[in-house]
Amino acid sequence: MREVYIVGIGQTPVQEHWDRSARDLAADSMLQAMDQAGIDKADAIYVGNALSGELTGQEQVAALVADFAGLTGTEAVRFEAAGASGGAAVRWGYLAVASGVHDTVLVTGVEKMSDLPGPAVEEALVTSTDEEYEAIHGLTLVALHALLMRRYMYDYDLERRDFAHFSVNAHRNAVNNPCAMYRRPISMQAFEKAKLVADPISLLDSAPAADGAATVILCSADVARATAGSFVEIIGSALATDAVALHDRPNPLFLRAAHESAQKAYAQAGVGPQEIGVFELHDAFTILAALSLEACGFAGEGQGVRLAMEGEITLEGRIPICTMGGLKARGYPMGASGVYQIVELVQQLRGEAGANQVQARLGMAQSVGGTGGTAVTHILRAPH
Amino acid sequence: MREVYIVGIGQTPVQEHWDRSARDLAADSMLQAMDQAGIDKADAIYVGNALSGELTGQEQVAALVADFAGLTGTEAVRFEAAGASGGAAVRWGYLAVASGVHDTVLVTGVEKMSDLPGPAVEEALVTSTDEEYEAIHGLTLVALHALLMRRYMYDYDLERRDFAHFSVNAHRNAVNNPCAMYRRPISMQAFEKAKLVADPISLLDSAPAADGAATVILCSADVARATAGSFVEIIGSALATDAVALHDRPNPLFLRAAHESAQKAYAQAGVGPQEIGVFELHDAFTILAALSLEACGFAGEGQGVRLAMEGEITLEGRIPICTMGGLKARGYPMGASGVYQIVELVQQLRGEAGANQVQARLGMAQSVGGTGGTAVTHILRAPH
Repeated sequence: MREVYIVGIGQTPVQEHWDRSARDLAADSMLQAMDQAGIDKADAIYVGNALSGELTGQEQVAALVADFAGLTGTEAVRFEAAGASGGAAVRWGYLAVASGVHDTVLVTGVEKMSDLPGPAVEEALVTSTDEEYEAIHGLTLVALHALLMRRYMYDYDLERRDFAHFSVNAHRNAVNNPCAMYRRPISMQAFEKAKLVADPISLLDSAPAADGAATVILCSADVARATAGSFVEIIGSALATDAVALHDRPNPLFLRAAHESAQKAYAQAGVGPQEIGVFELHDAFTILAALSLEACGFAGEGQGVRLAMEGEITLEGRIPICTMGGLKARGYPMGASGVYQIVELVQQLRGEAGANQVQARLGMAQSVGGTGGTAVTHILRAPH
Repeated sequence: MREVYIVGIGQTPVQEHWDRSARDLAADSMLQAMDQAGIDKADAIYVGNALSGELTGQEQVAALVADFAGLTGTEAVRFEAAGASGGAAVRWGYLAVASGVHDTVLVTGVEKMSDLPGPAVEEALVTSTDEEYEAIHGLTLVALHALLMRRYMYDYDLERRDFAHFSVNAHRNAVNNPCAMYRRPISMQAFEKAKLVADPISLLDSAPAADGAATVILCSADVARATAGSFVEIIGSALATDAVALHDRPNPLFLRAAHESAQKAYAQAGVGPQEIGVFELHDAFTILAALSLEACGFAGEGQGVRLAMEGEITLEGRIPICTMGGLKARGYPMGASGVYQIVELVQQLRGEAGANQVQARLGMAQSVGGTGGTAVTHILRAPH
């Protein structure tokens, strides 16, 4: 397998872009990344998207986006794995370059969620669950996570407010990210008073549906050398799956797919969690942040929330997470978020994270589908 | 790149399976293929599916199907490219094995279209078009193909009934396919009298929405040698895209993506159309069959329908197409159809096509998304 480098990144602000469609957002991020890398074509375009069919009535998004970005005819396909769609697109982009299939792959994540009213979005989001055994009973995505959070609080003797640290951290970090949706800090008190969505999950536990697109350009060493500037290397990549329905998992509080994909990525990179300096995780809900930290070895079983309570997830902590706001405050354009994570890691590893800069040689990103049915993990290394 | 072999195939009958869900159909075809190949696990599962979100409220289908087939945890992802979804899954399965990423990949196409009433299915199908410039004006998928057919008839001085030969051939061939949806011949007269859906397209020009799943197991030479029996080799594979909207193409009657992907597959295989002995094409509508024949070099510009009129597309003709019924009569479970095509080619190339057996050393399959926004082409070689 060949070395794979990221030579260009692009992203649109995450927000409700009422005046822009998915193709417009996608092309915007693609052109930014191509401009940065100094390239005007790619061997292939891999698009991560979760809900374009349900939310905008548009499938075959990859061909559409390729054409709109001026790359008509280019091999292009869409990857879908619910919330892990963007991570999946990055994974196959990595594989295509690493294996020698392609020299340059443009990986774009895009999602447009603001065209329909809330109930329609909720109906679309629930497709990430097991339709025949979960959704059919009225269980929504947030309700399933509420079950997880309630169980976690019971098992480990925690209160709802103990989860606040994840959201406070995410919002604090988003203040300095010009592409973030919610650029304002929140207080512990605001978290405690936030309206409940599905008890014990409140609005401030939940990442907001949003519009946005992000792009990374992956290429071989030969192509990378021909571009200007420093570049980040992908040294670990893995995807694993699990039962989609919560009740089909021996221990619902153990994110098996997250664990498996992290273990494989660690093994490939030849590192462990202690060597990871920044971790962009999938905080669609605060409980998922806690479970991901545990599944990936940053905290022991039942210790994920305590890690946050101890301040270890902040920019100054042992393992900074959501350094540009995470899904919670940067915003959660579903199928795009896995690519946003990689863009933000690249910013950190190239020293371009501004006021939020952490000192890290290695960064990790993890993208999760549904309550954990799919997980994709990538480990990136800073330029030498 | 390594050699890639197909060592197992599986398929469910194509019909309206009111008593079976997508996961059930998918697992059925997967277990058949695994049984045939004598394997009980795979390195990865690639799922082709077009409309599961819209039609069954289920995304993240790949993880779901992996779990239901007893392969919980296996790397699994879904590929979507409208009608070309199944072909796309085969393409990346091929790439994964050819490049050495994986030794064994299970490629499954699945679609469940009979759960919702007709108008909802029509609404889902139209997501294959350009939503903002075509669907928004009320243009459906069949209406767009009606424009193509009308233009073709005008340009080449043909009548509606001249297209009958495609459907008559498909239905004749389906009679002997136990997995086909419509196992009955139709007459030229029946075609002429068929109800119009969107003038000049009638019911008998149109492939029926249906339920079904098909699986092929792709593996390296080493793995193939360890299995019993003969195996078919994939010697050409390519995917190309085009503008999704008809009006964005210089010549709407030229399927550029189909042409490009066929040319690349020919070049890789080192052959031309004259060496292809059987061609499973994407006859979602009769006009698409004609345009595919032309785009792939089996007929000159405007000669696709005449090729059919001259009987050259039958089992006894120069280039047999739709040898097991094609999309028209085998049935069109959208994202699964690209995998059905490969299954049927394998049957032909292994000499297992029964009464429909053609003599061919090389076979080609082409899967098309929408009116031609995506096209995937594969060339297969019979066992030595």
